[in-house]
Amino acid sequence: MTRASSASAPLAAPDPELPADALDAADPLAALVSRFAPAGDVVSYLDGNSLGRPLTATSGRIEGFLRHDWGTRLIRSWDERWMDLPTVLGDRIGAAALGAAAGQTVVGDSTTVLLYKAIRALLAARPDRHEIVIDDDQFPTDRFVVEGIARERGATVRWVHVDPTLGVTVDLLADVVGPDTAVVLVNHVSYRSGYVADMAAITELVHAAGALVLFDLCHSVGVVPMRLDEWGVDVAVGCSYKYLNGGPGAPAFLYARRDLLPTLEQPIQGWMGAADVFAMADGYTPAPGIRRFISGTPPVVGMLPLHDMLDLVEEAGIDAIRAKSLALTDYAFALVDAWLGPLGVTVATPRAAELRGSHVTVTHPSFRAVVAALWEEGVVPDFRNPDGLRIGLSPLSTTFAEVRVGIAAIRAALLAG
Amino acid sequence: MTRASSASAPLAAPDPELPADALDAADPLAALVSRFAPAGDVVSYLDGNSLGRPLTATSGRIEGFLRHDWGTRLIRSWDERWMDLPTVLGDRIGAAALGAAAGQTVVGDSTTVLLYKAIRALLAARPDRHEIVIDDDQFPTDRFVVEGIARERGATVRWVHVDPTLGVTVDLLADVVGPDTAVVLVNHVSYRSGYVADMAAITELVHAAGALVLFDLCHSVGVVPMRLDEWGVDVAVGCSYKYLNGGPGAPAFLYARRDLLPTLEQPIQGWMGAADVFAMADGYTPAPGIRRFISGTPPVVGMLPLHDMLDLVEEAGIDAIRAKSLALTDYAFALVDAWLGPLGVTVATPRAAELRGSHVTVTHPSFRAVVAALWEEGVVPDFRNPDGLRIGLSPLSTTFAEVRVGIAAIRAALLAG
Repeated sequence: MTRASSASAPLAAPDPELPADALDAADPLAALVSRFAPAGDVVSYLDGNSLGRPLTATSGRIEGFLRHDWGTRLIRSWDERWMDLPTVLGDRIGAAALGAAAGQTVVGDSTTVLLYKAIRALLAARPDRHEIVIDDDQFPTDRFVVEGIARERGATVRWVHVDPTLGVTVDLLADVVGPDTAVVLVNHVSYRSGYVADMAAITELVHAAGALVLFDLCHSVGVVPMRLDEWGVDVAVGCSYKYLNGGPGAPAFLYARRDLLPTLEQPIQGWMGAADVFAMADGYTPAPGIRRFISGTPPVVGMLPLHDMLDLVEEAGIDAIRAKSLALTDYAFALVDAWLGPLGVTVATPRAAELRGSHVTVTHPSFRAVVAALWEEGVVPDFRNPDGLRIGLSPLSTTFAEVRVGIAAIRAALLAG
Repeated sequence: MTRASSASAPLAAPDPELPADALDAADPLAALVSRFAPAGDVVSYLDGNSLGRPLTATSGRIEGFLRHDWGTRLIRSWDERWMDLPTVLGDRIGAAALGAAAGQTVVGDSTTVLLYKAIRALLAARPDRHEIVIDDDQFPTDRFVVEGIARERGATVRWVHVDPTLGVTVDLLADVVGPDTAVVLVNHVSYRSGYVADMAAITELVHAAGALVLFDLCHSVGVVPMRLDEWGVDVAVGCSYKYLNGGPGAPAFLYARRDLLPTLEQPIQGWMGAADVFAMADGYTPAPGIRRFISGTPPVVGMLPLHDMLDLVEEAGIDAIRAKSLALTDYAFALVDAWLGPLGVTVATPRAAELRGSHVTVTHPSFRAVVAALWEEGVVPDFRNPDGLRIGLSPLSTTFAEVRVGIAAIRAALLAG
């Protein structure tokens, strides 16, 4: 294929064909794709790992909220349905995606604010220890929060240096976690490589050292099954706008282990986290349960789309979602190897099924320009500085055909470049 | 009127009639009431000071957001329209309601979280001082946040004791603000009494002592004009779901004075407040401007209704809104005096126009039960522990007729009690 011919037919697939039809036909979750709102000019959406798509059902839900819950029940809806939303939705996330029993998960605030509360609470629970362990490839907000807290609390940040095509391993942590470690913060799935950390083994290691572990689930929740209760994870925080499709800036959630919870005190004491919200009393007494991690008034509007997505996750089941995710990433690897590898594209995501989340990261020096061009033609992966292109595969909304169209377009753009 | 007749016609008005018709007919903002969504069975909504009503325009806006911005532009909308929302809306609030030039106001997080950031930042800006001054009648979340911060930072809380039917005065503050005062936190309008603090004089007093002042605007923004720039206020925080009608749990806003801003460092360092959001760089450098008060991903969905309400505030003008607010509270006082005073109801709101916000608080030992009964019949004021009933008058959505119906219903409920 010459450069000229690729420019005139940019979505034409090169050999080998690697057809998607049979894969979509065999997909037990294929019917659920139609639950999502039409994506207009987008022919391949490969960024559900950054912002999931809306469900059609959400329009009616929000219209009903405007007309009835807010519009006519007005303030009465706080008593009737809103006050418990943070824990109702938290429990649903826990059951559907976290392996968490009720009463340990709450929705509210941004991921960053919840990470701040979580780290402060965990650090305070280990007052004789002074180190926070984190790796140097974590998402920026995690690193920034940790550095800020370390400075204000006089703690030390112990950096784990990781291979950016992998992530944090038990062996790497074993070298740095020790008697002065208070908290270890680990991204369950690396935002860059898609590497899945071994949550069970890391928790065991951290606990053996007498420290506490916090997992950031942003890039795994809703797509990689986990068993927080069974594995004894202390605290976990995740966002709801990626694979949980909650909408841009939708509130995050926080899980805290039931038997640890009563000892955790977060620093942003607010009325909605108090034991008796409407007592208007002197002095703050935290709620006995997970509500103690709430500070201000819960962001009701921002939580509404989550209902619909949780319906869908419950209907599909997290194991079936994981199975489709693995099939999608397998297919993406095959297409990348056949079509992009020969053009100098490198894969930065682990190949082993148990080590990969639901996005495949590839690198090439031209990807900044390539992604900008692809966005114009309705092919939407995302770009991560300095040279990464992430192919996000959101199992409930992504078809195999879409993956094929998208990777063919990446090839065409590189050839046209 | 006997008890039996009042029970059979609970909304019938006693003498004197104090008719509302002429007042509504003379109201220059009367036509704007129709912009709000129908309130169904609610015949008198007197709780706009707690949760404002939705505008009809918001349905179309959210539908467009779901279909276009989120549904088809998807992740591209961050570049196209969402990234600047916190400052675009902040600037609009500043211009329409705060007397604040652009670049000093940002929307995001809950009021509680923003109060935490603000107090921490102001305390850090006066490192040689150790006192936070606050009054004992402030809204619980303000007191809780201050107490938490004082404990963690080793600061002292100096309590100002206020008359609960008034609020914080310059004289009261003059007795406690001194050379060790770092921060003074004042509610612009008291949530209980509706008293309006003298923002200009308090700011002058606090600055004369070398301290910094933080105003909580939750109960004044959108209804009591203010001139933050002119008065030299340091920082202010307010919510958007009361008189700004942003919806339940809509994000709050923070104002920081332009020349003070570069010295303010808030503790929750997140990627969206960094100088270069997408650099994914090592180490946090705060954005030079007001964005430094942002931590996590902005809550887009929760900000959408604010657009429509700000359109309306801009159209009406804050001075006309204040004029109607005063007319509504005047009318409420007249009805309360004529109809409720004889039943043992006490007024807990200052009478002088310059000292009152836009709610009138009345007290009676039966009000907990009265409010519960009124809610059942579509008359919706709110109750505040232990015996307060607040008559909230939201000038853009409240008619004089509605005030009359509501206060007549309170009378009927007391008589039926």
